[in-house]
Amino acid sequence: MTITPRTLSGFQELLPGDQIMFESMLERIRRSFELYGFTPLDTPVIEASEVLLAKAGGETEKQIYRVRINETEHVMRFDLTVPLAKYAALHSGQLTFPFRRYQIGKVYRGERAQRGRFREFYQCDIDIVGDGELGILNEAEIPSVIYDTFNSLGLRDFIIRINNRKVLNGLFEILDITAESASIMRTIDKIDKIGADKTLQLLITECGLQADAAEKIIGFISAAGSETEHSGLPRQLSAYLGHSETFDTGVFELGEVVKGLRAFGVPESHFRIDLTIARGLDYYTGTVYETFITAHPEIGSICSGGRYDDLAGYYTDRKLPGVGISIGLSRLFYVLSEHGYLNRDYQLSSCDVLILPMTEDFTGAAALAALFRRAGIRTAVFSEKKKFKQKMTYADKMGVPYAAILGEDELREGRVTLRDMLTGEQTTASASLIVAGLKEKLADKHDITPIKEP
Amino acid sequence: MTITPRTLSGFQELLPGDQIMFESMLERIRRSFELYGFTPLDTPVIEASEVLLAKAGGETEKQIYRVRINETEHVMRFDLTVPLAKYAALHSGQLTFPFRRYQIGKVYRGERAQRGRFREFYQCDIDIVGDGELGILNEAEIPSVIYDTFNSLGLRDFIIRINNRKVLNGLFEILDITAESASIMRTIDKIDKIGADKTLQLLITECGLQADAAEKIIGFISAAGSETEHSGLPRQLSAYLGHSETFDTGVFELGEVVKGLRAFGVPESHFRIDLTIARGLDYYTGTVYETFITAHPEIGSICSGGRYDDLAGYYTDRKLPGVGISIGLSRLFYVLSEHGYLNRDYQLSSCDVLILPMTEDFTGAAALAALFRRAGIRTAVFSEKKKFKQKMTYADKMGVPYAAILGEDELREGRVTLRDMLTGEQTTASASLIVAGLKEKLADKHDITPIKEP
Repeated sequence: MTITPRTLSGFQELLPGDQIMFESMLERIRRSFELYGFTPLDTPVIEASEVLLAKAGGETEKQIYRVRINETEHVMRFDLTVPLAKYAALHSGQLTFPFRRYQIGKVYRGERAQRGRFREFYQCDIDIVGDGELGILNEAEIPSVIYDTFNSLGLRDFIIRINNRKVLNGLFEILDITAESASIMRTIDKIDKIGADKTLQLLITECGLQADAAEKIIGFISAAGSETEHSGLPRQLSAYLGHSETFDTGVFELGEVVKGLRAFGVPESHFRIDLTIARGLDYYTGTVYETFITAHPEIGSICSGGRYDDLAGYYTDRKLPGVGISIGLSRLFYVLSEHGYLNRDYQLSSCDVLILPMTEDFTGAAALAALFRRAGIRTAVFSEKKKFKQKMTYADKMGVPYAAILGEDELREGRVTLRDMLTGEQTTASASLIVAGLKEKLADKHDITPIKEP
Repeated sequence: MTITPRTLSGFQELLPGDQIMFESMLERIRRSFELYGFTPLDTPVIEASEVLLAKAGGETEKQIYRVRINETEHVMRFDLTVPLAKYAALHSGQLTFPFRRYQIGKVYRGERAQRGRFREFYQCDIDIVGDGELGILNEAEIPSVIYDTFNSLGLRDFIIRINNRKVLNGLFEILDITAESASIMRTIDKIDKIGADKTLQLLITECGLQADAAEKIIGFISAAGSETEHSGLPRQLSAYLGHSETFDTGVFELGEVVKGLRAFGVPESHFRIDLTIARGLDYYTGTVYETFITAHPEIGSICSGGRYDDLAGYYTDRKLPGVGISIGLSRLFYVLSEHGYLNRDYQLSSCDVLILPMTEDFTGAAALAALFRRAGIRTAVFSEKKKFKQKMTYADKMGVPYAAILGEDELREGRVTLRDMLTGEQTTASASLIVAGLKEKLADKHDITPIKEP
């Protein structure tokens, strides 16, 4: 009696080729974060309920995975931000602020399972957390990391849309509708999906705004990007300057972020001030970001974040302002795959070379494997007793680019036959010459990225 | 009212310096596994109860973390072997056998929390799984990977002890005590801890052996390693040859493994046939491994595994024999740290260089950061408005090896001042010269390993 093996629905489990792609994306993201001097962080997947749920409520609470061991109940993390808040508060005495950390790990949300939505998924987060204060340049650096990161994956055709909550909050001050600001933020956040007319309606019917105020908001945000000053800022900003300190600060900060982005080398084609970006969360207080694949805006933002003034207020009286952003990698991988963005030229084998010994004695093959590996060539030995044809079939199925054939002739002459599995071309030479040739060929493949636009 | 932040006991949460060490160990292990052509695998942390617990029972069941979402209960994985069995059975049609996979991930066991024992811990596993059959060379390759892996971490003083269950089972056949074999295995597995005399006692009192048989067993296993033939095998093996097919096969396999290890380049100093290694688990059927730090045998095995004949018998009728080994990295990291094995020369900062702008305008600093990063130098910018001394204090606290000072003079002259934070030495030169010099200095640090013997 066997049990039918299965993987729970909503849990991503990849086949080897896809997993290799996924791992290479993880690694490139890690490298990119490290290039910007972020320090790695790893926190438990399981946390004490009262700590993790200090801030949660509503939808979040319903999606929480609860964990029981013996009599005790804990919870599984649903993001990497609350664990960061806990970590920063708990260890604040031993950290150096500004604290720049990245964290890549799985998080858990019991969402209704549907295609491309996962209950266990990777988040790749960066945050810069200050102690009491944090300079504005950090708010330009965060999208710079994201620009470099997506580039390193091979994604070219994307745009980072940037706004500042202070601009919107300032506008609400000027229009004297601050009491409704949270609900207005949530409403205008939908403009991309539902359009300007529907948003205008909702501002009146759901947020209770006067038609005049609602029209001013729509006019302000939807003109965004149509005309841009040399400063990189939309023209309509200047119309409201001088009426609200919040608004003016927001405009100043947007200008500083644009200046910073240019200095960090992010091209104008890859970022845009977009006054419709509100981000629903109350949490954000300044610059906010969303990132879209230009050809597929319907996918929604693939990388979002922003500036917050108080990371860990639930755990400490110490004010820890910060700025951060998050890539939901499991979903991103899924949509990239669905839309044909995975690079077919990417090597889907974990081996660079497979050694096929043609003799009974495998010691020659083992010694050759050791030689290849010392040279940094990823090597496996096929040591099953099979016919030549079956050995070649295995090499084919493995998708390995090269096979090293080691027969009696080769062993006697101290040589190796290297077969290019794609072209079928074979070369016989001394092991050291083969190693040198292989290293050269493999170096050419280093620039192949896991993503390639279709 | 704030909530006191805390991390659950039994859960490892490292400070940045230690985390950098830990990550570098993870990365070196990953590289080493990949050099041997293992393909990465990632499976969910949560699995269906009936699948994950198909094989479990007794102690394991008690330590299971149970997960609840809405009305459904699942379980968290307690190792990476059962998920591999599920994966291999579930996806067998899409895998190429022998299937060589590595998996590095967290597993969960509700053990009684005590120093150095974790409830959430990293396992780093490699397995080679065949379809119906699997050649003996694989049993030599597994310890070769481990030898290279520990070496790449900087650990030198360790030994891999190897035995073959067929040798012990064959001996039990010859002594006509096969009915007791499971309990004998468990008993002799303790000989390292309790000594030969106590083990002899237990064989008689607990396993119910005659004194004569018990003495023969102790004589056989404890003479191990005292005298070794040219073949690398202990002399006493030959005394029992020719009386049991199982025994003879075991001896032959041990010989092949020694031959393979030598061919793969593992020095004689780092492996030894040790007939006391039994491994308590019924699961293993051939070669078994344990790895010890020579100076600290009391730590116990830091890397164990072996050959099994039936990986996924609970899920499929297809016979999938394999061989694998596992490093429990969280505990290993803990004991290495406790025993002073962490390398004090290892760079504990995530940055190679910290840019300290001395002017109001940070655009020069941002541009310099972009230049450094394009050269692969891990760079952060300190953009807080602080006095010079506070900026230097930050660089010191960060443990960053170099600071790049960018004052008005430097900006005007298109130059950078690089300060070696350890020696205090400063050089002013053009940015491109500074980059070239830095790359050279940083390359020298590549050989510094996270582990260094005290």
